[in-house]
Amino acid sequence: MNNNNIPKGVISRLPRYYRYLGELLSSGLERVSSNDLSQLMKLSMSQIRQDLHHFGGFGQAGYGYNIIYLYSEIGKILKLDKTHNLVVIGAGNLGQTLTNYATFEQYGFKIIGIFDNNPALDGQDIGNTGLKVQLLDELPDFLNQNDIDIAVLTIPKQGALAIIDILVTHEIKGIWNFAHVDLNLRVPDTIAVENVHLSESLMRLSFRLDD
Amino acid sequence: MNNNNIPKGVISRLPRYYRYLGELLSSGLERVSSNDLSQLMKLSMSQIRQDLHHFGGFGQAGYGYNIIYLYSEIGKILKLDKTHNLVVIGAGNLGQTLTNYATFEQYGFKIIGIFDNNPALDGQDIGNTGLKVQLLDELPDFLNQNDIDIAVLTIPKQGALAIIDILVTHEIKGIWNFAHVDLNLRVPDTIAVENVHLSESLMRLSFRLDD
Repeated sequence: MNNNNIPKGVISRLPRYYRYLGELLSSGLERVSSNDLSQLMKLSMSQIRQDLHHFGGFGQAGYGYNIIYLYSEIGKILKLDKTHNLVVIGAGNLGQTLTNYATFEQYGFKIIGIFDNNPALDGQDIGNTGLKVQLLDELPDFLNQNDIDIAVLTIPKQGALAIIDILVTHEIKGIWNFAHVDLNLRVPDTIAVENVHLSESLMRLSFRLDD
Repeated sequence: MNNNNIPKGVISRLPRYYRYLGELLSSGLERVSSNDLSQLMKLSMSQIRQDLHHFGGFGQAGYGYNIIYLYSEIGKILKLDKTHNLVVIGAGNLGQTLTNYATFEQYGFKIIGIFDNNPALDGQDIGNTGLKVQLLDELPDFLNQNDIDIAVLTIPKQGALAIIDILVTHEIKGIWNFAHVDLNLRVPDTIAVENVHLSESLMRLSFRLDD
């Protein structure tokens, strides 16, 4: 199957399907009807049928969906059946928090290095992860010696721009960007960028407050 | 102007406009053409004109947009001209990190309390914020005595569901939700919910990795 044929809207909903299906699986259920899934996820039944239709032949009339099959197929599409190595760049509060976040590893995202330019943080232990902060000048060697797919950027904007060249040179595949800058405007198309702008999320909430 | 008439897509882009206009303002610029803004933000000129048209009469042919006026109007629409008091519920790594995040206060989001159900955290100082962790049993009184608009949820799913009743009873206006649960399915329409599901963001990135 060619994943490029799946519409963006469907893709953006896949992680949510994956989460709900995972919970149903944990609860011991083997099959779920589009009706039940519809009520659970507050999506219309036709939306669910359309979405899941893109993966072809999952549903069986009268039987509902096979949860473990659907969960596993969506996992493959999201590439959660592989292990991805990550480095975190920026060992401030946010960088340390993400490094400590055990949930990511359960989906195959393994943080194996954390870097900062602040000498005061050099060698500092990160929670119970077994990782120690390394200085940024060690990053190029680390990228040469390890198979890193994703860089997590949790540094200020100026630092982020300076680091991009290193990541591009070392052919990193993806950047999970928490810096206040739109990196997708500055990196080649071959590098996937996912921006998480927390302030903007808070502003969208603020807009919708009833006051 | 009735903000309800602004399409959702435009609203979702407003924080980004706000950020870019703020940077142009810091750089000392007073006016910007839709052409320059288009190149900077990688949006088409017609998109920019359409978006900004919703706020009526900002642009002047041949003069471009008045940056400070536009910045201020968008700020008002996003309600950044007011101060919003926030409480953080969950004093783990993520809750502490968000509480320490100085950026939010510059937009009028002021965190004035942080709560947890772990007695070991009771009274712990949060960075240089002057805040100390309080136990969750103190939350109802705190909500009674303070004018809180937004609760930031950084606790596990089960804890999140238990806390909702308290927030609903105390007529909180918005929930910024980092818990792994879709709160908007469980709170009344009068409470605005913005979900930040970090694992799902990472999965969307994973999907787009070229491997």
